[in-house]
Amino acid sequence: MRSLADALAEILGTLRSRQPLIHHITNFVAMNDVANVTLCLGALPIMAHAPEEVANVVRQAQALALNMGTPTRDRLDSMAIAAREANAARVPIILDPVGAGASPWRTAMAWQLLKGVQVTIIRANRGEVAALLGDERRVRGVEAIGPSQDAEALACELSSRTGAIVAITGARDLMTDGSRLMAVDNGHPLLATVSGGGCMATACVACCAAVAEDPLMGAAAGLVIMGLAEERAATQARGPGSFKVALMDVLAALTPDDVHAGARCSILSGG
Amino acid sequence: MRSLADALAEILGTLRSRQPLIHHITNFVAMNDVANVTLCLGALPIMAHAPEEVANVVRQAQALALNMGTPTRDRLDSMAIAAREANAARVPIILDPVGAGASPWRTAMAWQLLKGVQVTIIRANRGEVAALLGDERRVRGVEAIGPSQDAEALACELSSRTGAIVAITGARDLMTDGSRLMAVDNGHPLLATVSGGGCMATACVACCAAVAEDPLMGAAAGLVIMGLAEERAATQARGPGSFKVALMDVLAALTPDDVHAGARCSILSGG
Amino acid sequence: MRSLADALAEILGTLRSRQPLIHHITNFVAMNDVANVTLCLGALPIMAHAPEEVANVVRQAQALALNMGTPTRDRLDSMAIAAREANAARVPIILDPVGAGASPWRTAMAWQLLKGVQVTIIRANRGEVAALLGDERRVRGVEAIGPSQDAEALACELSSRTGAIVAITGARDLMTDGSRLMAVDNGHPLLATVSGGGCMATACVACCAAVAEDPLMGAAAGLVIMGLAEERAATQARGPGSFKVALMDVLAALTPDDVHAGARCSILSGG
Repeated sequence: MRSLADALAEILGTLRSRQPLIHHITNFVAMNDVANVTLCLGALPIMAHAPEEVANVVRQAQALALNMGTPTRDRLDSMAIAAREANAARVPIILDPVGAGASPWRTAMAWQLLKGVQVTIIRANRGEVAALLGDERRVRGVEAIGPSQDAEALACELSSRTGAIVAITGARDLMTDGSRLMAVDNGHPLLATVSGGGCMATACVACCAAVAEDPLMGAAAGLVIMGLAEERAATQARGPGSFKVALMDVLAALTPDDVHAGARCSILSGG
Repeated sequence: MRSLADALAEILGTLRSRQPLIHHITNFVAMNDVANVTLCLGALPIMAHAPEEVANVVRQAQALALNMGTPTRDRLDSMAIAAREANAARVPIILDPVGAGASPWRTAMAWQLLKGVQVTIIRANRGEVAALLGDERRVRGVEAIGPSQDAEALACELSSRTGAIVAITGARDLMTDGSRLMAVDNGHPLLATVSGGGCMATACVACCAAVAEDPLMGAAAGLVIMGLAEERAATQARGPGSFKVALMDVLAALTPDDVHAGARCSILSGG
Repeated sequence: MRSLADALAEILGTLRSRQPLIHHITNFVAMNDVANVTLCLGALPIMAHAPEEVANVVRQAQALALNMGTPTRDRLDSMAIAAREANAARVPIILDPVGAGASPWRTAMAWQLLKGVQVTIIRANRGEVAALLGDERRVRGVEAIGPSQDAEALACELSSRTGAIVAITGARDLMTDGSRLMAVDNGHPLLATVSGGGCMATACVACCAAVAEDPLMGAAAGLVIMGLAEERAATQARGPGSFKVALMDVLAALTPDDVHAGARCSILSGG
């Protein structure tokens, strides 16, 4: 019987052979890191946010990754154009609502996007999901704070309200499509010392979702790959600077066999 | 009696325990480095420049860092909104007038900001301060050129005209609040080989100003911390690329004891 | 008799002694890397794209580098203003039509710029040049795909239609000014694993074109320097992350003697 580890490993293999084009509309802080992570996984990034070209670009892509960091009205408008086109062309949309809760406007903009189109996967931290659900006490700036027990309930509620797969990253990553609940335990705390760690994780999810038949499995594969790379990079790092450098090296070298051997992923329910 | 070294070391200790939120409106070149430096010091960066959210964001922050590199009309307008709100909420404002003198427009924009609000600390190089004071011969692009003897006079004049603490960085960093004059001799010339070195120094100053009771001491602590990190990173570096990586590693590892032992800071007058 | 290697080495020597100011209007993904590469070569970068200041900035510069990645209407307008001023002030213009072919709009914007001003050097990959010449099958996202035999014909045709020197980078770099055809064989495939590799090559070309009397020789010198740095960085790299770090270290350390000894550059015809 085909195991969960087989399925996750196969996604990385497919990704490296198929080289999907990933259209990123992302924030200015992590844009370079996001493009590099995408290349490291074997996919091709295209960073384009002008309203004049996003519809054309997304039609050529195998995934659309929307990241709401450093939002501006113009770029949010372009996200909406690209997302509508992605829905029409059946291109999966991965949304990272960076800093939801940092301002009421940012939270409202995320909901405006979520209500206008069908997002495939939301990748966020616990604080951002709590903020989207109306509880803004759990976010500080763009960082999650407070207790982590409720991640499962938060993921299920946001999935139910949006129809999207919701993947909440933390010490344990949790993801649900509303019927199945999965967990990924790969990862390393050093990621939290680097700006854009969540954005890079979202890029991994977008790459995997571009080739996975089952998007929940794509989300899991992306977070396993990112988590494994964190673990390996941590063994080479002397701090946040060398950790990020090693992360790119390790991501580029990661093989399907590595994923098979190292994945700490489980189906908690509904599998 | 409590020494200057005690006071500087204590600021880093407070910073790491209190984890202040730093609202950056910064340039697109150094945005990633600025966010990472902020995290390395133990603070939380939030990068937000949309006019719809900056007032809300800055009210949650413990410092507002405004960096005028790659300026555009929109972002300058957002800086003004955020700065007015910061004044109302008594959040310290740290201004880095990157490239003042590179164009008359950029210089005028810096003054427009300085006249509309009370900035707490201006962190700049000598050429930029000279340009703000009407002498544009001392800047080339965004780099300072020419003799350095007059930094003290320039700092005092700009402080007098703005009511802000002025910190001019160079081989010797000088800072004044109009009555006291301090010097920091930590640092390393390799910083000049890296784009955004000044922006990173400004980020350090903003982090320290967010927690220091005395903002002049905050400016000094920020420049001591940055300078110490430069010195240590230089011992690990093979050039500008590895220097920046090591700078992040070293900043994250720096302890109050390191600051106490390594600070080369003095009160030149008015102490 | 003065050799080709002498001429290329001399350009790096002149660059390091003269420290030209390079005005970059570039994309948000590679902006930091482009500024750092410029500094590593001994030139001074200024990143400025506000319409209010670009004309003033470019008049102080020794080269204007225009990079069309992450294009927006506003920045394209600023490029046109700066380019017209550069033509008037006889400042060489280096254009990198990143992702031409990624959307019809982007291709059209590149032509709008090329028709309004005289560009000195176009640095692009084969797919981008093909797209500019009306064949959009050879580009995927911003990456070139397909056969490489026709690079010479493509370079000559684009040069003929624009009056610019055209430098197409690939396993073998080819460049022509319409009468002479040159090749550079320095380089390393690891560059393709890093986002912004082409943008960094363009920055090297811009730095050299700022000081070279013969712009074709400037283009060749820039690509020799970049290629040599790639070769050396590859020996230190464990993957894309450490490769980019090493690239900066190596670029900063490269001497005219290194260029003389390592250049693999030839004049194929018209020399």
